[in-house]
Amino acid sequence: MLTSTVVELKGHIIDSRILLEVLDAIGEQGGNFVIEEFDAGRTGKDSSYARILINTASQEDLDMILSKIRPLGAAEIVYDEITVEPAPQDGVFPDNFYSSTNLDTFVRIRGSWIPVDAIEMDCGIVVDLSCTPPTACCVPIGSIKKGDNVIVGGKGIKIVPMEKSIQQEVFGFMGSTVSSERPTVLALANIAETMKDIRARKKKILAVVGPAVIHTGAGKHLSALIEAGYINVLFGGNAVATHDVEWALLGTSLGVCLETGIAAPRGHTHHIRAINTIRKYGSFEKAVEAGVLTRGVMYSCIKHGISYVLAGSIRDDGPMPGVITDSVEAQEAMRHNLKDVELVLMLSTMLHSIATGNLLPGRIKTVCVDINPATVTKLADRGSHQAVGIVSDVELFLKELAEHLVGSST
Amino acid sequence: MLTSTVVELKGHIIDSRILLEVLDAIGEQGGNFVIEEFDAGRTGKDSSYARILINTASQEDLDMILSKIRPLGAAEIVYDEITVEPAPQDGVFPDNFYSSTNLDTFVRIRGSWIPVDAIEMDCGIVVDLSCTPPTACCVPIGSIKKGDNVIVGGKGIKIVPMEKSIQQEVFGFMGSTVSSERPTVLALANIAETMKDIRARKKKILAVVGPAVIHTGAGKHLSALIEAGYINVLFGGNAVATHDVEWALLGTSLGVCLETGIAAPRGHTHHIRAINTIRKYGSFEKAVEAGVLTRGVMYSCIKHGISYVLAGSIRDDGPMPGVITDSVEAQEAMRHNLKDVELVLMLSTMLHSIATGNLLPGRIKTVCVDINPATVTKLADRGSHQAVGIVSDVELFLKELAEHLVGSST
Amino acid sequence: MLTSTVVELKGHIIDSRILLEVLDAIGEQGGNFVIEEFDAGRTGKDSSYARILINTASQEDLDMILSKIRPLGAAEIVYDEITVEPAPQDGVFPDNFYSSTNLDTFVRIRGSWIPVDAIEMDCGIVVDLSCTPPTACCVPIGSIKKGDNVIVGGKGIKIVPMEKSIQQEVFGFMGSTVSSERPTVLALANIAETMKDIRARKKKILAVVGPAVIHTGAGKHLSALIEAGYINVLFGGNAVATHDVEWALLGTSLGVCLETGIAAPRGHTHHIRAINTIRKYGSFEKAVEAGVLTRGVMYSCIKHGISYVLAGSIRDDGPMPGVITDSVEAQEAMRHNLKDVELVLMLSTMLHSIATGNLLPGRIKTVCVDINPATVTKLADRGSHQAVGIVSDVELFLKELAEHLVGSST
Amino acid sequence: MLTSTVVELKGHIIDSRILLEVLDAIGEQGGNFVIEEFDAGRTGKDSSYARILINTASQEDLDMILSKIRPLGAAEIVYDEITVEPAPQDGVFPDNFYSSTNLDTFVRIRGSWIPVDAIEMDCGIVVDLSCTPPTACCVPIGSIKKGDNVIVGGKGIKIVPMEKSIQQEVFGFMGSTVSSERPTVLALANIAETMKDIRARKKKILAVVGPAVIHTGAGKHLSALIEAGYINVLFGGNAVATHDVEWALLGTSLGVCLETGIAAPRGHTHHIRAINTIRKYGSFEKAVEAGVLTRGVMYSCIKHGISYVLAGSIRDDGPMPGVITDSVEAQEAMRHNLKDVELVLMLSTMLHSIATGNLLPGRIKTVCVDINPATVTKLADRGSHQAVGIVSDVELFLKELAEHLVGSST
Repeated sequence: MLTSTVVELKGHIIDSRILLEVLDAIGEQGGNFVIEEFDAGRTGKDSSYARILINTASQEDLDMILSKIRPLGAAEIVYDEITVEPAPQDGVFPDNFYSSTNLDTFVRIRGSWIPVDAIEMDCGIVVDLSCTPPTACCVPIGSIKKGDNVIVGGKGIKIVPMEKSIQQEVFGFMGSTVSSERPTVLALANIAETMKDIRARKKKILAVVGPAVIHTGAGKHLSALIEAGYINVLFGGNAVATHDVEWALLGTSLGVCLETGIAAPRGHTHHIRAINTIRKYGSFEKAVEAGVLTRGVMYSCIKHGISYVLAGSIRDDGPMPGVITDSVEAQEAMRHNLKDVELVLMLSTMLHSIATGNLLPGRIKTVCVDINPATVTKLADRGSHQAVGIVSDVELFLKELAEHLVGSST
Repeated sequence: MLTSTVVELKGHIIDSRILLEVLDAIGEQGGNFVIEEFDAGRTGKDSSYARILINTASQEDLDMILSKIRPLGAAEIVYDEITVEPAPQDGVFPDNFYSSTNLDTFVRIRGSWIPVDAIEMDCGIVVDLSCTPPTACCVPIGSIKKGDNVIVGGKGIKIVPMEKSIQQEVFGFMGSTVSSERPTVLALANIAETMKDIRARKKKILAVVGPAVIHTGAGKHLSALIEAGYINVLFGGNAVATHDVEWALLGTSLGVCLETGIAAPRGHTHHIRAINTIRKYGSFEKAVEAGVLTRGVMYSCIKHGISYVLAGSIRDDGPMPGVITDSVEAQEAMRHNLKDVELVLMLSTMLHSIATGNLLPGRIKTVCVDINPATVTKLADRGSHQAVGIVSDVELFLKELAEHLVGSST
Repeated sequence: MLTSTVVELKGHIIDSRILLEVLDAIGEQGGNFVIEEFDAGRTGKDSSYARILINTASQEDLDMILSKIRPLGAAEIVYDEITVEPAPQDGVFPDNFYSSTNLDTFVRIRGSWIPVDAIEMDCGIVVDLSCTPPTACCVPIGSIKKGDNVIVGGKGIKIVPMEKSIQQEVFGFMGSTVSSERPTVLALANIAETMKDIRARKKKILAVVGPAVIHTGAGKHLSALIEAGYINVLFGGNAVATHDVEWALLGTSLGVCLETGIAAPRGHTHHIRAINTIRKYGSFEKAVEAGVLTRGVMYSCIKHGISYVLAGSIRDDGPMPGVITDSVEAQEAMRHNLKDVELVLMLSTMLHSIATGNLLPGRIKTVCVDINPATVTKLADRGSHQAVGIVSDVELFLKELAEHLVGSST
Repeated sequence: MLTSTVVELKGHIIDSRILLEVLDAIGEQGGNFVIEEFDAGRTGKDSSYARILINTASQEDLDMILSKIRPLGAAEIVYDEITVEPAPQDGVFPDNFYSSTNLDTFVRIRGSWIPVDAIEMDCGIVVDLSCTPPTACCVPIGSIKKGDNVIVGGKGIKIVPMEKSIQQEVFGFMGSTVSSERPTVLALANIAETMKDIRARKKKILAVVGPAVIHTGAGKHLSALIEAGYINVLFGGNAVATHDVEWALLGTSLGVCLETGIAAPRGHTHHIRAINTIRKYGSFEKAVEAGVLTRGVMYSCIKHGISYVLAGSIRDDGPMPGVITDSVEAQEAMRHNLKDVELVLMLSTMLHSIATGNLLPGRIKTVCVDINPATVTKLADRGSHQAVGIVSDVELFLKELAEHLVGSST
């Protein structure tokens, strides 16, 4: 059975010929090596450093090599194991708990690297040592139960840096700089190709949607994408659902007629009327069944069986039935809808974009479209570095995207 | 008993001498009049229009006048009474309900104008006709009970336009234009005077606070204002409390040391450690009692008995104990803390500012300080027209304000 | 010959029957009247006021009427004539000069209202009294010659308020509010119709263009509009021309390949290479003739004989030949190209938009498209209130506009 | 005489012991070495690479070493010399010219590294080979004379990367991220210390000033800094000078009274009156002499003999006498005033900040204070990466800075 280990060498290993002897010893035993790191020092007085990965065909070969090179100063690197402490009470981590990042993470248990499930930033890692092999899972503070084995300190944890290439492979040139002075159409073509690919592989695309999508009249383009299978999960708030229904029932969004751009008489009351109507029917689904709600983004979601999570906020009127007013429950609902999501389109909402970004593994491709560069900047400031920002007009963006993917949606 | 009514006259009332005769009749009976509106027409062919308020010392005098002027074509204006319908179910208004504004409102019941209590935009108005005199109250949709008498249609409702002068008297030059190119110090001096006056009259000042106040190191200035009695109620979210405690316990905000501006090692975990600590103690209050929390805005609130409402959002980690995670409950808590508030300072938070703006009567003076002009613009777009916007640096703003009111706070 | 005058009446003109007698007198003489203003006072104690325009068939009739109504207190309104003073030296106005607005203006000379030519804000008005009738013209301070008759004080000047309806008739709903949350496509359809109409009437459309148009890859859409006759004059700076030529010669803008979005190796030197190439040929025109410059916005301008003004600024590299480096000369060149312009499209440039706005009569329709709301706000702050702001992505905006007007331009 | 060279070694230099022999040979001859680069390869099959700087006490020692190690495969690195071509005409670089960066640059001529004078981005480098040693100088395209020896291609050029540490030593924590959520006061304290140090060493501080400094009432703080010797050069445009004089003469800026914040009657004409007054006197200096201009930033500059450059733009009214309307001349004037400048404060002006940034060597400390993060972002996008951005309120910033350095300035 192939086996390997990593050794370190320090000191005047070049001029003392130690490095050569170590490498010779590996070769003689039929092993091969990778010099993972080498620092030759800069002058004759400096000490050198080498970290060498040794691969051999068997544990015996490896032991033989180690027996030869240990006297030369080669020291095998021993990885620390994690340390765990039980949670002192429900909803409380032990002191000195390890706080997770959103990058793929492995933890060292009994000599093996165990992957951490459900990775998410700012959580604890709970391990179950009773399984074979043991398991490790990211757990938000509110879900911790007294006695859970929570990793403390920083030992035995390996984080895989995000492969920039994955993001860049798809989103090529966009990089991390947020600028309104770039070609949006190029980015859009890339995103469209990614969406086709994800749909073809039956994975999921999540749209996180703010009310500006409705106010600008872009709801119909979003509906077209939903109906064509390009949006598979939708996150939003009370506002986007309210104005979408306002438009569906009364033709206005925030009181402005989307056919003419003119404010309707008493239009400022339309959104609360829309809320009242859906409350009267009891749910969006019942309003669809009753033939009252016959168009719009919510209608498209329901007709096409798209999962949606509407999370409440203190700005909300109403709220609409189905809006999850408890923020912790809403986060849980969002987490449960991330399975198989490979691309997130964040469309003109700072609150929901940041909230979703908090829950996403760093490896998920994320595109944030907003006319305000501050939204994208804030998203990155709060840890969602993977988000590619496109400073654009969400209406024209969705119109173009729908034309790319579905043909004209108007 | 003084009494009054309003009459209308239409037609060729000038050249036919009707207007003169009406005014004569009022004068002869010892009444006096106010011509509330007069439209002379523009040419000899046009009809004229006059609306005249008649005041008399007694109902008898008024009746006498009316008996004389009715034959001249003067028609008493009869105000419609409101129409009410019972709410069809809990949480649902009757169709065609009247949706409130945030301006002082009176409703016409049995010939009298009844003031509407607890005025707030986008609510229904519930009347209790069993009292003498009847009462009217603004009720949000979620608090409606089946059978409540809700006003429908638009009849019998009188809205008092906001007296611009009230806002302008205090905030003089600022007007509604949002600009970063105005003298902040002048606005600041005005606000400081208003705050002194409110404190002297034992009314209340509400601060709505975002986490940038903590990140920028301005928490100490806010604390100084709280301690000196200039802030009497505080609204915020989980983030402002978290970073405030992070600073109190660990000296950082979002991981950045506020003494040096340098990011602390592993500082990105500090906020979740702060949350864990307070969760361990069970509440901010207990952490203060335990001598663990000894400085910061939350500490100042607790030590000085200031009411605070921390409203949760889906962006939150944790959350901190005491954060109200249900958005509808949080709105109720905010409403209950608006009594006697005469000035609201909105400091660097779009979400909480808009949420508070939604609940405020239009007559309450509101100042929104944000480095981003979009925050103020959005606030106004969503109906809080009274908000005076100051585009400034919240740290320097609070530093100056504290120096004005308290002397140096550093 | 029809003639007219305006008289004022003050005092207790209703109950003293004076108003009626005046109106009777006019009617008796066969005249007719317009009550331009009427203030009835609000109570019996207040004085009333009427301003009445009297039209008669002849001066005799008018004189007769005036002779009857003067004893009733009717006073003919006599308009002040303007006062002029000679400019004390070249480039200096007399003290107390009248500073112009950008609204249509008339000045009172020898009893007549003379229109002011070339109206523009912040200029002086120079009158030529030697002509019959006299003439009046707006003159910028730098063009004043010693001895010019410049209007001083505020007498004898009549400004025609901008008819909001003209702007609104075309741009309907857009009003003055700047918001990114409005339907861009609706505005765009309106603008397209306006452009068709102007082209059909052989009037002109001016595009004021910033380099973001090139950086975003929207140059080809602008070229399509130029080639189809929808843009008749172009204003810009060195940067837009430089990056346009950079793209034409090297395929990049600011070093970024517009086909791939990827930064070209040594791409940051491309713009200065583009400048060097055109300098070598001596002008854009010669580079076109030589077959070196074969595409792009400048190419389209030259091939279609479109007038352009490139104004220099201190940010410029080079500059390109043809760029007018003197700002006063550049302003003159811009002024000379405003003739017959009925619509101005300001595309992603704050400097050139404000500069053009300064020179435009207020009646010219102006649309400012920028992703940054601050640009539109600044434009209005500096007096160009007529500008309709569209907060959008200039690339997608021009793409849509070109598709509306020309069909697909890609 | 100490001498040195650089050699390269390639191949299996570790296991073949070549590297050791080379290092031995150097040591034997009394030389010492720096391993500038070492790539050990990653596996036994890979070739290694070393680049070694050899220092010896004499050319003889070096020759001896080289004679020993050349047979081992050590190859001396020979630096290419630059290539030059004569400029083909005035104002035109030869094709393939080398375009400069703003970083310290050396060019290889006759075996030596010659420093490039007056380094500035986007220029050509002209060498004078007739001097001993030869000289090299950055020359903007417009100043090139036919026949100048301009470097072409990229050979023989060495750029010294900016030592981040220099910027960071002073501005510590600020880094390159632009954020409004950082403590301004900390940055301010750092800047104040830097200013004290520069003043003490009699070097210069340049302020680049936009009109918002005047509009916000911060002019008096800037004057205080000028008067105390903390600002030694001032760059701005017509607008800042105009509004400064408007304030000095009429108490308003853009028509708004800076004592009360209220718009003055006819205040929109004040700036053009201010311009007219200075034009009448002929210059700022003469207006000061005449006792007409007695306060303000321009007054402070003149009274304290501060150099200023006012650069014109096409937005300008007037302009003021002394404004350089030609942009190329203005750039030259700016260049001539950069001597001894060690710190640049860019205060609320995008145009002048970018223009100044274009002319600055990268090593000059640059702080950009603007309420709009886009200004700082644009500055960096255009190559001025060294600029530290502070998103703040320029009025409060200058007030605090003046209080730090001068004591209260109000």
